[in-house]
Amino acid sequence: MQDIEGGICAPKGFRAGGIRCGIKASSAKRDLALILADRPCTAAAVFTTNRVKAASVLVSQEHLAGGICRAVIANSGNANACTGAQGLAAARRMAALAGEAFGFPAEQAAVASTGVIGVPLPIAAIEGGMDALAASLSGDAAGYEAALEAIMTTDTRKKGCALETEIGGGAVRLGGMVKGSGMIHPNMATMLGFITTDAAISRELLNRALVRSVARSFNRLTVDGDTSTNDMVLIMASGAAGNPPIEQEGADYEAFAEVLETLCVRLTRALAQDGEGASRLVTVTVRGASGEAAAETLAKSVASSSLVKAACFGADANWGRVLCALGYAGVPFDPEAVTVRFASAAGDILVCRKGAQVPFSEEKAREILSAGEIEIRIDLEAPSGGPGGPGEAVVWGCDLTYDYVKINGDYRT
Amino acid sequence: MQDIEGGICAPKGFRAGGIRCGIKASSAKRDLALILADRPCTAAAVFTTNRVKAASVLVSQEHLAGGICRAVIANSGNANACTGAQGLAAARRMAALAGEAFGFPAEQAAVASTGVIGVPLPIAAIEGGMDALAASLSGDAAGYEAALEAIMTTDTRKKGCALETEIGGGAVRLGGMVKGSGMIHPNMATMLGFITTDAAISRELLNRALVRSVARSFNRLTVDGDTSTNDMVLIMASGAAGNPPIEQEGADYEAFAEVLETLCVRLTRALAQDGEGASRLVTVTVRGASGEAAAETLAKSVASSSLVKAACFGADANWGRVLCALGYAGVPFDPEAVTVRFASAAGDILVCRKGAQVPFSEEKAREILSAGEIEIRIDLEAPSGGPGGPGEAVVWGCDLTYDYVKINGDYRT
Repeated sequence: MQDIEGGICAPKGFRAGGIRCGIKASSAKRDLALILADRPCTAAAVFTTNRVKAASVLVSQEHLAGGICRAVIANSGNANACTGAQGLAAARRMAALAGEAFGFPAEQAAVASTGVIGVPLPIAAIEGGMDALAASLSGDAAGYEAALEAIMTTDTRKKGCALETEIGGGAVRLGGMVKGSGMIHPNMATMLGFITTDAAISRELLNRALVRSVARSFNRLTVDGDTSTNDMVLIMASGAAGNPPIEQEGADYEAFAEVLETLCVRLTRALAQDGEGASRLVTVTVRGASGEAAAETLAKSVASSSLVKAACFGADANWGRVLCALGYAGVPFDPEAVTVRFASAAGDILVCRKGAQVPFSEEKAREILSAGEIEIRIDLEAPSGGPGGPGEAVVWGCDLTYDYVKINGDYRT
Repeated sequence: MQDIEGGICAPKGFRAGGIRCGIKASSAKRDLALILADRPCTAAAVFTTNRVKAASVLVSQEHLAGGICRAVIANSGNANACTGAQGLAAARRMAALAGEAFGFPAEQAAVASTGVIGVPLPIAAIEGGMDALAASLSGDAAGYEAALEAIMTTDTRKKGCALETEIGGGAVRLGGMVKGSGMIHPNMATMLGFITTDAAISRELLNRALVRSVARSFNRLTVDGDTSTNDMVLIMASGAAGNPPIEQEGADYEAFAEVLETLCVRLTRALAQDGEGASRLVTVTVRGASGEAAAETLAKSVASSSLVKAACFGADANWGRVLCALGYAGVPFDPEAVTVRFASAAGDILVCRKGAQVPFSEEKAREILSAGEIEIRIDLEAPSGGPGGPGEAVVWGCDLTYDYVKINGDYRT
């Protein structure tokens, strides 16, 4: 498995583009993106679990029900959520515009939107921008970056990557791009993720690999506890790599699922690092829980705690808040058998053993916690002091900063 | 029912006091409090549900098991949590010191602590302060205020009140005081609440009234989603009012339960208003849910949302975030039948009907949301537009501000 350039345009069979059509009225930024496959692709997607779903989510769920996708049309600057029948019509129109421009049925287009909730989507701006959008398409890095820019809102950096691996004797590529910074917990809130691959793979196995990868990556990310109306992660497989089609579980499927999970974890870390106002990526690892689900719940409770997040911002080795957050996670464990370490590139320090403080250097702890990427490592030992259960999970989050409050105090204006 | 002066010293049979014994090493603030009843009282209490429980909680649970309490000894500056066997011994010693000083069994003392987690409690400072603590006792406002000051940590204001009502033909009084500002959701985190009454009431009914009142007040408060290791709400009934003892449900019990709930709601609002860094008290009301529990869950989801809280800080009428938070609460409702209003002393404005925006004046909305106390009113109508279900609940919270981050970024130093 190796890193390659080109993001979602790295796999064979895809072009992308992005323009400014005027949805972000007061901004010169791009706001309309297209990812176009040369041929209909096998597709799979996961969507927000919020009961309030954007029109784009409802339409994409309907269109992807058959597992075939030719294109994604996405806008930023407007979520097209809580917009009623008018919003639903606008989302359908977006899909139809993509189909008309490139000669495929509207049902083969997925639609995505992100931005402010409750404001009618200016569909005329999108209609007026379709020619320019088509002209912006390319199969190289320029097209990929234009598309990526066009789905960004409060994102401060572009988040994308591509990987190549060998499957069935030949090279297979995956590329991904995401947007999102606030509202990413517990299940992919305000995030859009688009992944392309040239692997030949059945719809069922593509879906299985996506669900597993998302469970271990995007769904283990927490920025502020809110779950949005608009989230989706979509993967399109063109089959252009020419590998023997992956149609049952086995070595080829495992290789594909592994590279997909690696890609998703890479994108998840980028999202956490770009959490609204975030100054540090915080990785929380829990080991020794009764099972993986218990470990995940405990780790998420720590990564979501406003008090832990604020302490990370202050580089304060406040391990008591870590124990406190474990304590209200709703999962049984022995508080008197917990070990906590803080770690980063600056080192590793033990601060709590058997649920109580051990002497440590505050200066060293502060140095460790001042890094841009920090780790909270929690071991749930057996009461006897030996190893705990087999459950282990890694969760990603970020610190809580002044800038988070600033960004969200007046988002609409 | 009427307001009276004197807080926890207003009911007959109680004295209180507070001193500085030196637990808060770097501060001149009071850190040790005592509430002393003239005679053993009937008592009831509720405690944190966190699995990591402070030594003070463990000892108080044990001591109050019999329903008899003569005194509460409480310290601030140190939570005595995650302190192992040494911490448990220190908490027992606190109870014994109170008993020795006033000639009652240690088991009749409740113990409470609040402050930093994981640091050994300096019990010698408490031992050394007992004479001064006894000397500080009084049955008037001075004693009450000294005790209240001595349990405060990041609290910025004193939070207490007293009410008088008529039960069984005579006057009965209740007084209460609380500390707490961060970590108050979902179940009374980092809060201590002490309530006194001179009502004569059986232990069983006292407990029933307390549990009901706490469920509708302190447990409907959310500041930052964390639940602490140390919380408790304790009520002591001296019986000195001389009312016919309340030993079964009926008019007297209902009158007592009503005044207790009013007192608890009063204290809850004071806690929300003093939430760490809070600039506004935010009241969220949900009507039309299928039941009270559903209404409470929905209202808490809105009041806990970091995005809603940040919008309140910015006086931004971002009703889309309200719908979004309802959507991930995990309770069924029809998103297309939701009405949202914002209200305050400056007026009342409809911003969302049937789940979609209605035209409204941004200027007026900003004026309403700039008040110190604001209300988010949510009606879940029937899909036909008529009234929704019978479920209704009120929840209290506060906004998310720069100061919250500042206070919690470096709490220990």
